[in-house]
Amino acid sequence: MEKPAETHYPIHDLLRQRWSPRAFSDRAVSHDVLCSLMEAARWAPSSSNEQPWHFLIATKETAVEYDRLLSCLNDSNQVWARLAPVLAISIAHTVFADGGETNRHAFHDVGLCVENLVIEATSVELMVHQMAGFSPDKVRELFELPADCEAVAAMAIGYPGDSSLLPDRLRQREGSPRSRKPITDFVFTGRWGHPSPIVTNPIGKETR
Amino acid sequence: MEKPAETHYPIHDLLRQRWSPRAFSDRAVSHDVLCSLMEAARWAPSSSNEQPWHFLIATKETAVEYDRLLSCLNDSNQVWARLAPVLAISIAHTVFADGGETNRHAFHDVGLCVENLVIEATSVELMVHQMAGFSPDKVRELFELPADCEAVAAMAIGYPGDSSLLPDRLRQREGSPRSRKPITDFVFTGRWGHPSPIVTNPIGKETR
Repeated sequence: MEKPAETHYPIHDLLRQRWSPRAFSDRAVSHDVLCSLMEAARWAPSSSNEQPWHFLIATKETAVEYDRLLSCLNDSNQVWARLAPVLAISIAHTVFADGGETNRHAFHDVGLCVENLVIEATSVELMVHQMAGFSPDKVRELFELPADCEAVAAMAIGYPGDSSLLPDRLRQREGSPRSRKPITDFVFTGRWGHPSPIVTNPIGKETR
Repeated sequence: MEKPAETHYPIHDLLRQRWSPRAFSDRAVSHDVLCSLMEAARWAPSSSNEQPWHFLIATKETAVEYDRLLSCLNDSNQVWARLAPVLAISIAHTVFADGGETNRHAFHDVGLCVENLVIEATSVELMVHQMAGFSPDKVRELFELPADCEAVAAMAIGYPGDSSLLPDRLRQREGSPRSRKPITDFVFTGRWGHPSPIVTNPIGKETR
C-alpha cells in the first residue's frame, strides 16, 4: 500500500513515499539489505562526529532474539509489529566517549541516523515503523545496557503487507489520510511565532 | 567539491553524497527551494505525530535577521558560516502540546526531521552543515523562545563553494578523509556489545 505525502511544495520522491505502515509482509529481509540500512545509518552526521548510535536488531530467523525484542514493545504495538520480519531498537550513548560529558545531541543525532536508515529502506521498497510505545527499562534489563546508554525508539522493518489482515481499528488507521502542520506554523524569521517571509512569500526572489 | 562516503555496503546515492562542508558559494537560494526543504522536514515521522520541530531561518537578503542568527554562533563557526547564504536554527518543543508532559523524543524527532531536510537539500545540490557550536541561551534571549522550547542545532545552508577561500586549517579539514565506526561496532543482537550475525555474516540467507 502506498500513501504518498500530499505536499504543498515538491520534495524528493523517496521522502514523499516514506510513511509508517502497520501492515507488513512475512517476506524475509536478507542480511545484505539490512547491512545497507545500517551502512546508511553509519554515514549520518553527528555532533563532533561522535556517532552516538547503536542498534539492537533481530530477524525471525533467530526466534529467541526476535521474541526478546518483541517482548519490550507495548501490547498495542506487539499486535501488529509481530508480523514484521525484523525488529530493532535504537540506542543513544548519552555522554561523550572522550571525557564523559553529557552529549545534549545524543537523541537528536540518533534521529539523524535513523532517518538515513529509513530513507535507505524506502529506496529498496522496505518500510520502517518507529514506536515510542515500548519499555526502555525492560530493554535496559534484558540487554544489560550500560548506564550511559538509553533506549530511544523501537522499530519494525519489512516489506509492505496486506492491511486486510490487521484488526479493524488498525486497518482503518492504515487507510486514513496523513496530516501535518503547514510550514508557516513552524518556520519563523526574526522572532518566535513570526512566520518567515521565505514561507509566506515562496515565489519571492532574492534581492542581492 | 564532492566527498562521497566510502561505503562497505551500497547505499542510495543521496545518502552517499551528503556531507557537511564549510565552503559555501555566495549564490542565493530561492524561497521556493527553501520551501521544499521545509516541506521535506514537515513530512518526517514523529512520536504520536507530535511534530515537535520549529526553525528560525534567515537569508542574506534580510541582513538584520541573518546577522541576528549569525551572532548566535561560536566565533569559530562564524568564520566560515558567514559565507553561507542561509542560516537556520532547529528548535525542539520539549513537552507535548496536549497535556504538557515531557516529550522524551523531542530532540530525536527534530533529528528525524532535519535529516529529511538535509536529504532534500542534497537532492537539489545544496549542502547543509549543522553546528553544535552556538549559544542556545543567546537564541532563547534574542528570539524570546518559550520556556518549553529549546534550540537544538544551528545550520548553514547553501550551494558548494571554493574551499581555497577558507582559512588554512579549515581548508585542510575540508579535504581530509571522512571516517565512521564500522557497523559491527554498533549493531548488536541478543546482548549489549555482541555484534549481530546480520552484520558479521552479511551474505547469510534467511532460513525460514
